[in-house]
Amino acid sequence: MAEISRTEELVQRLQSLQMTTPDIEATAIVSVDGLTIASSLPAGVGEDRVSAMSAAMLALGERIASELGRGTLDEVYVKGENGYVILRAVGEEAVLTVLARQQTKLGLLFLDMRRACDDLADLLHE
Amino acid sequence: MAEISRTEELVQRLQSLQMTTPDIEATAIVSVDGLTIASSLPAGVGEDRVSAMSAAMLALGERIASELGRGTLDEVYVKGENGYVILRAVGEEAVLTVLARQQTKLGLLFLDMRRACDDLADLLHE
Repeated sequence: MAEISRTEELVQRLQSLQMTTPDIEATAIVSVDGLTIASSLPAGVGEDRVSAMSAAMLALGERIASELGRGTLDEVYVKGENGYVILRAVGEEAVLTVLARQQTKLGLLFLDMRRACDDLADLLHE
Repeated sequence: MAEISRTEELVQRLQSLQMTTPDIEATAIVSVDGLTIASSLPAGVGEDRVSAMSAAMLALGERIASELGRGTLDEVYVKGENGYVILRAVGEEAVLTVLARQQTKLGLLFLDMRRACDDLADLLHE
């Protein structure tokens, strides 16, 4: 069997997350400085836009968690009337960003995201 | 019975929210430009700091919800290893910020916050 690249492995893990949770519309792994590492986005969702927003949210989330005594940042979520943007740290240097529909079951989504983040962190540190 | 001021009514509503959900540590209503309207904070939690962080988070949350197609902002939450910061819109001009402990039951907290926000919006528009 042909070896696949690490990027392909990361994208496959993102796609498997999207398959287990059908209300996920888009996923991306973004470095803390706002550059895309891997993504699985539908047409019409700009990779640059997702990365820039993820990095801004991560930076502010970290500042808020620290200034208001919440410790190290685990997760950030933004709920709009049409759905969610959820970020979760992947190790120390990246973040997983998920766009999900409004009717998503958050408990299940968080569980699947936590598992995916563990796997993605392993892939990034191979 | 002596009439109470609107600020006292707002603070009483914040305190009743904190009593129904004992894992809440602090609450504040902050205007969209980052000024405190009313608060119920323990010693050691600075009002200015909570207000500034709330306004920054609200502004970025609104931008992210809009840029990533999530519509009007409903809620933002930041989870750190020691607990949560949760923001929810109170009408169009203010936001309710809640600091909660790590072991809080989120589903119940969101429900109580939604009720409180409806009441606070009514008080603000009296």
